Amino acid sequence: MTSGQGTDCAFCDIVAGTAESSVVYQDDLVLAFLDILPFTPGHLLVVPREHAPGLADLDEELGAHLFRTAHRIARGLRAGPLPCEGVNLLLADGAVAFQEVFHVHLHVIPRTVRDGVRLHANRRQPHRATLDLMAGRIRDALTAEHGESRA
Amino acid sequence: MTSGQGTDCAFCDIVAGTAESSVVYQDDLVLAFLDILPFTPGHLLVVPREHAPGLADLDEELGAHLFRTAHRIARGLRAGPLPCEGVNLLLADGAVAFQEVFHVHLHVIPRTVRDGVRLHANRRQPHRATLDLMAGRIRDALTAEHGESRA
Repeated sequence: MTSGQGTDCAFCDIVAGTAESSVVYQDDLVLAFLDILPFTPGHLLVVPREHAPGLADLDEELGAHLFRTAHRIARGLRAGPLPCEGVNLLLADGAVAFQEVFHVHLHVIPRTVRDGVRLHANRRQPHRATLDLMAGRIRDALTAEHGESRA
Repeated sequence: MTSGQGTDCAFCDIVAGTAESSVVYQDDLVLAFLDILPFTPGHLLVVPREHAPGLADLDEELGAHLFRTAHRIARGLRAGPLPCEGVNLLLADGAVAFQEVFHVHLHVIPRTVRDGVRLHANRRQPHRATLDLMAGRIRDALTAEHGESRA
């Protein structure tokens, strides 16, 4: 594809080379490039070359390679010259989970103290009986989805 | 190991069966159980059976399987009976990145509208030249760490 032949997916355009990006790593399956609206300096995204809107559409082994790539990059960042005292890997699946571009992407976010990234949730400790009941319902859902129960 | 023979790692104790947990899935390599201080109902953690404090210590293929497992569980949650309109996968590597237990764990967080989970960062769009410079430095770090450059 040549410049101007854009798709309706911003990340497919980057993969095709019809949109600009600052690439950090690429292989036959995935591409990693810097986020243009970073949480912190060095914040990057790992995406599959093949379009998949969400986790439901993503091949399992491609997902495993997405993580393998993010893991390698995270180790490189921790050992590298940029400020990086920690790393968050984050995947947002669905609009309510903060997904903005509907082409699966795994965020790799270098962290430092006082970098301004905050995560808030109303955490409350449930009773063990509530957790056990919930675990049973999730195991049933996994069995229905994948035809096995391994707990 | 029998009850009372705890290690100094809360997740190793769960893996060994000497601490209580509400297990959702297990195989030879990983264990998934409900977080006792959940962000949302159904929030769970996938951990490797083998102790690894952080990503730097985690075997690459074990990491890939951690993600493969979280991916399967996320699909099960989306298709299952619990409220789940989206999912966040989150890995915190290092205290500054919100890691609390130093045994690698991948959070699987079911999300719904108005569930109270918020993520804040001071996002600012850098110039392309700044991103390109940053990408070059990260590529150099990856080459130093992994002996290859693929960008």
